[in-house]
Amino acid sequence: MVQAATLIAPYQLEVREYPYPTELEPGAVLLRMLASGICGTDKHTFRGEVEQYPGSETQRGATYPLIQGHENVGIVEAVGEGGAFAGDGTPLEPGDRVVPAPNRACGHCGPCQRGFPYVLCDNLDSYGNALAADVAPYLWGGWSQYLYLKPRTGIFRVPDSLPDEVAVLTEIFAVTHSLERAAQVPRPSGFRPGDSVAVIGVGALGQAHAIKAQLMGAGRVFAIDPSQKRLDVAARVAGAEAADADELRNVDLVVNATGFPGSFGKAIKMVRDGGTIIEVGAFVNMGEETFNPAVLCGRHLTFLGIAGEDLLVYERTLALMARHADSIPFAEMVSHRFDVADAPAAMETALDAERSAKVLITG
Amino acid sequence: MVQAATLIAPYQLEVREYPYPTELEPGAVLLRMLASGICGTDKHTFRGEVEQYPGSETQRGATYPLIQGHENVGIVEAVGEGGAFAGDGTPLEPGDRVVPAPNRACGHCGPCQRGFPYVLCDNLDSYGNALAADVAPYLWGGWSQYLYLKPRTGIFRVPDSLPDEVAVLTEIFAVTHSLERAAQVPRPSGFRPGDSVAVIGVGALGQAHAIKAQLMGAGRVFAIDPSQKRLDVAARVAGAEAADADELRNVDLVVNATGFPGSFGKAIKMVRDGGTIIEVGAFVNMGEETFNPAVLCGRHLTFLGIAGEDLLVYERTLALMARHADSIPFAEMVSHRFDVADAPAAMETALDAERSAKVLITG
Amino acid sequence: MVQAATLIAPYQLEVREYPYPTELEPGAVLLRMLASGICGTDKHTFRGEVEQYPGSETQRGATYPLIQGHENVGIVEAVGEGGAFAGDGTPLEPGDRVVPAPNRACGHCGPCQRGFPYVLCDNLDSYGNALAADVAPYLWGGWSQYLYLKPRTGIFRVPDSLPDEVAVLTEIFAVTHSLERAAQVPRPSGFRPGDSVAVIGVGALGQAHAIKAQLMGAGRVFAIDPSQKRLDVAARVAGAEAADADELRNVDLVVNATGFPGSFGKAIKMVRDGGTIIEVGAFVNMGEETFNPAVLCGRHLTFLGIAGEDLLVYERTLALMARHADSIPFAEMVSHRFDVADAPAAMETALDAERSAKVLITG
Amino acid sequence: MVQAATLIAPYQLEVREYPYPTELEPGAVLLRMLASGICGTDKHTFRGEVEQYPGSETQRGATYPLIQGHENVGIVEAVGEGGAFAGDGTPLEPGDRVVPAPNRACGHCGPCQRGFPYVLCDNLDSYGNALAADVAPYLWGGWSQYLYLKPRTGIFRVPDSLPDEVAVLTEIFAVTHSLERAAQVPRPSGFRPGDSVAVIGVGALGQAHAIKAQLMGAGRVFAIDPSQKRLDVAARVAGAEAADADELRNVDLVVNATGFPGSFGKAIKMVRDGGTIIEVGAFVNMGEETFNPAVLCGRHLTFLGIAGEDLLVYERTLALMARHADSIPFAEMVSHRFDVADAPAAMETALDAERSAKVLITG
Repeated sequence: MVQAATLIAPYQLEVREYPYPTELEPGAVLLRMLASGICGTDKHTFRGEVEQYPGSETQRGATYPLIQGHENVGIVEAVGEGGAFAGDGTPLEPGDRVVPAPNRACGHCGPCQRGFPYVLCDNLDSYGNALAADVAPYLWGGWSQYLYLKPRTGIFRVPDSLPDEVAVLTEIFAVTHSLERAAQVPRPSGFRPGDSVAVIGVGALGQAHAIKAQLMGAGRVFAIDPSQKRLDVAARVAGAEAADADELRNVDLVVNATGFPGSFGKAIKMVRDGGTIIEVGAFVNMGEETFNPAVLCGRHLTFLGIAGEDLLVYERTLALMARHADSIPFAEMVSHRFDVADAPAAMETALDAERSAKVLITG
Repeated sequence: MVQAATLIAPYQLEVREYPYPTELEPGAVLLRMLASGICGTDKHTFRGEVEQYPGSETQRGATYPLIQGHENVGIVEAVGEGGAFAGDGTPLEPGDRVVPAPNRACGHCGPCQRGFPYVLCDNLDSYGNALAADVAPYLWGGWSQYLYLKPRTGIFRVPDSLPDEVAVLTEIFAVTHSLERAAQVPRPSGFRPGDSVAVIGVGALGQAHAIKAQLMGAGRVFAIDPSQKRLDVAARVAGAEAADADELRNVDLVVNATGFPGSFGKAIKMVRDGGTIIEVGAFVNMGEETFNPAVLCGRHLTFLGIAGEDLLVYERTLALMARHADSIPFAEMVSHRFDVADAPAAMETALDAERSAKVLITG
Repeated sequence: MVQAATLIAPYQLEVREYPYPTELEPGAVLLRMLASGICGTDKHTFRGEVEQYPGSETQRGATYPLIQGHENVGIVEAVGEGGAFAGDGTPLEPGDRVVPAPNRACGHCGPCQRGFPYVLCDNLDSYGNALAADVAPYLWGGWSQYLYLKPRTGIFRVPDSLPDEVAVLTEIFAVTHSLERAAQVPRPSGFRPGDSVAVIGVGALGQAHAIKAQLMGAGRVFAIDPSQKRLDVAARVAGAEAADADELRNVDLVVNATGFPGSFGKAIKMVRDGGTIIEVGAFVNMGEETFNPAVLCGRHLTFLGIAGEDLLVYERTLALMARHADSIPFAEMVSHRFDVADAPAAMETALDAERSAKVLITG
Repeated sequence: MVQAATLIAPYQLEVREYPYPTELEPGAVLLRMLASGICGTDKHTFRGEVEQYPGSETQRGATYPLIQGHENVGIVEAVGEGGAFAGDGTPLEPGDRVVPAPNRACGHCGPCQRGFPYVLCDNLDSYGNALAADVAPYLWGGWSQYLYLKPRTGIFRVPDSLPDEVAVLTEIFAVTHSLERAAQVPRPSGFRPGDSVAVIGVGALGQAHAIKAQLMGAGRVFAIDPSQKRLDVAARVAGAEAADADELRNVDLVVNATGFPGSFGKAIKMVRDGGTIIEVGAFVNMGEETFNPAVLCGRHLTFLGIAGEDLLVYERTLALMARHADSIPFAEMVSHRFDVADAPAAMETALDAERSAKVLITG
């Protein structure tokens, strides 16, 4: 049997047992889990705050029972008939250490055929998020000993130099394609080497943005967060300077990585005229804010909404993390590790933002 | 003496006389006016709604007395010592028919030296908008028989095939660099040939966007406006289909070209997931709207605020208009013409949006 | 039985009969052909000039026997089990009029998983080009009464307003994603509305580029070609001015759409400093030219090599062609139509460039 | 009197004396030199290889007598009437430590008014390169105790953390806007975080590219150079791996930073299909190479010619260098320092590429 933490209903997380999947459909992959992160969205889901992608074609609510866990790293245990391919085009073999993409696009809807990122797919399968644990083979999330991956899921090799606890952060770093988008937006907006970058909220997603900004050539990196602990981590992993939202002004690029109300207004005050705001934290509907379109227009601003990571950057992201594995203490982003059997304690720890950073559930 | 319409205070527009400028500083140019448009901003200014670029470094209020008129075409009458150059780098001579840029950047502030568009200049001179008519040589706006242009103002030759009443629209078309920006934003956002485009508000600025979208290869162009007359013009000049804001959905690119409250929320409903909104109409502060950052984020939207035209597109814009001068009835955008002496009647006509489109004041 | 023109060896084109495919694999589509074009590559292949993508991972030679024909339009006759989807994500049904993409990427090699265009796929299936007619179900090319399409081939609905003889040009127009790439290259290079564009060689590929340049807002379009007939067509379909390669200078963007030696050197002379050259015609190895890297560097030039069309632009390209179906006489690009049974005569006609433009083989 | 090294004719470099410029024209700046580099172009000029920008509007030959030196850092000694502004828009004062741009665009020619980089200016003033030392006030190059800067020359403040011998490298780093251009070129080409980069020739220009690639997030950096010494420096300053041009293949981005014949062909072999080559070394005409346009086309390659640095990146480049001043041993790029009085010995040292890297002449 396979142990997996299962969310039965809001606030009810328990460890259940599922049958070991002895048969795989062609092209599927079974992963023995090494580690799976608890992310902000997981906490929202745990609390029943489940209105995701509000107002979009992809809008969706809760799924119970749910095995959560979409930030994953594991070892290939078995491959279905016909084989499966890593992101570099080579065949996957048992024993390969890999990061699976947490979403699987259908490939045939309009947005997929238009080459859009998978957050826009009309039929998205989201591991750990929207595939119910009462549908065989059940193991659709990473807070489990094994994870079942459907055919044509993106699966990426982990360079040897990356330890599991860093590789598990890949999904978060893949969201920072946001900064790569900004790098392509023409001046006076966008992001260029030497530009100043401010990150509002340096939880794991914010830390990843601060690090990526640093790695892409930011001139200065500022972090805004109520937690001194997080600011300290941001300083060590990204060379980020702590800043006060009420004083920091005239920043080239502002990344809003909190999901909390009021932060967007702060971002607008912080950014320079002609500058850019990346809104990447408001993934769950936390309510409206007031906003003056004359500010967007008159100050010549650009806003980039980023609904999630992009499949196309996983391979390159892993290469980048591997290159800097020695010089950047990525692992400082992780504060706790728990066995699958202790998933409820893991969640309890993660909910205490004061005490914890990224919490991992290990397979 | 030179006649010029002068705004003494809100709602007080009168024709005054100024001395003919017999001496020009080196590099300055005196223009004999052929035509000058009345634009939406002019109407705001006339009514005393004068908070422009709200919240920006460039924020500014009213200037009285003011000779308005920033959409201009004229004939070079005289050139100051040392000469002046057209946008193509050739020397300007008396008799040349030209369109002057309505703004003049200082060239030495930070934003100017960073190559930013002139709306971001810290020391912007705005003809017809923010240079007071009580400062010699007084003739700083186009609703006048002559217009005085400081050294290093952008001045562009008008191709012979463009009549005055079309050339005078150049400034408005230069604002459509907005669409050129969108064309550079990476997918799934941005603007590509074959994309659908909706324009909310087809006054002159909206018409220019509809035409430019058509000329850049839009697959479909939709126009939203309460005035049937305007919709008819949009159909003829841009092949635009009239649409209902409450029904139109899933548009690749939405251009909000009204300055009116509530329109931004409509744009958000109209745009497809992953799509782009250009906010170009809210140049004057007309109040706040509510807005949900989770929509920007979760729907993966991009917002481009455009504070005005870009000096770099004038020359190309004139080439583009000249190419299509025969096939596009640009002149239908113009509804009335008045002498400078009749400027008050011109403004009265322009304020009646039901009865008029672009109103011109001819030199 | 199904009739199909088959190339047995260089210069040996004969009409053969193949069994009608009564069974389709899941997801496959059988197309009843309406029309298929003869393109420059087809003529090269006919003559045995078959070294394609020279020096690349995709380099390949000849395939015999070969049913040629990769510019196709047809009617869905049958769909394999499980169905197939049009590019807009809707299910395909018998009777749908569609344009199929002529290449089918594997989806699992490195370049595919990196989101690269299918010309870079390591395992490309090319209908009409590199799938041999001695492998069942044989009907891999469009010069046939029926065309067999493997699962996950791109298949795009044809708007009603496009006649077959225009829809068949879609593949050629899809190559003009070249201009969309150029539109994203930053200044001083790239392609912007109002820019001048020169097209060297206005066969069908060149005509398509001239038309697309016009539809994307070119300020002037120049055509260079020894054939007055082609120049006349370019004038009518794209408003192109005939130009002399030895005199035309200082052009913003040059498209080299010939496969002939010496043309690249002409393009270099024609382009302005800081400008861009699109090399899209030299698909088949026709020999080396001399070239001075100091010109590329010192003149700040940009060269964009374009190896073929991009799957992602088909749907938008069809929308764009449909919009202009009334105003642009696309059909003038077509000079002759032949039945499949007369394919040898069709090829003979096509080889006489003086007498013919695009030659079609109708199903 | 002011001492300045002066090139009288090829191979004739001597130290001459010039009058101290006691009067400055309005807006001019006199700089007391701290350091000035010897670059590859200077060596070409010394040897009489002086055909620069071959084939372009800007093509030019030699200028004698010439005070060379265009990689400069100095202290503001005096400012002409009316003042001058640093790149950040603040007024320059005596005592300010600054890097001046080595080129000064006219601002009024066509390319300047189109916003093109100054390498495309029709009337470029090039300090240390094309302003003759027999025209008052003579001090037009940096191998001198003082440098005279005309009004409206770009002048940038040096952050305190950058020592003179690093600040003097700014001009070279400003050429790496090449990589920023590449970052904006759409996929499959261009440069994205995690991409592999190969630099052919790691003299100072190549080292700067290797460092910048590293700072913009390269996944791997390869250096190709016959000198082990240079390869060692590249490893320390940019984490670059030494590679063999005959073996290295499938690189995302290749930077050709040598001016030597044959290197371009190597770059073509090294780059992956769909990849990008930056040609930045062939500034001086060193002869033709053979080249097959079918490779450019069929392999879907992109070539970016870069004729020099871009004024717009100086300020950001200095910010970036300052950020990494502690972690990157930039000063290892410098091998020797000589007084102005010893300029001939400096040149002799610089010509011995085996023995020297960047050689500085200090004021």
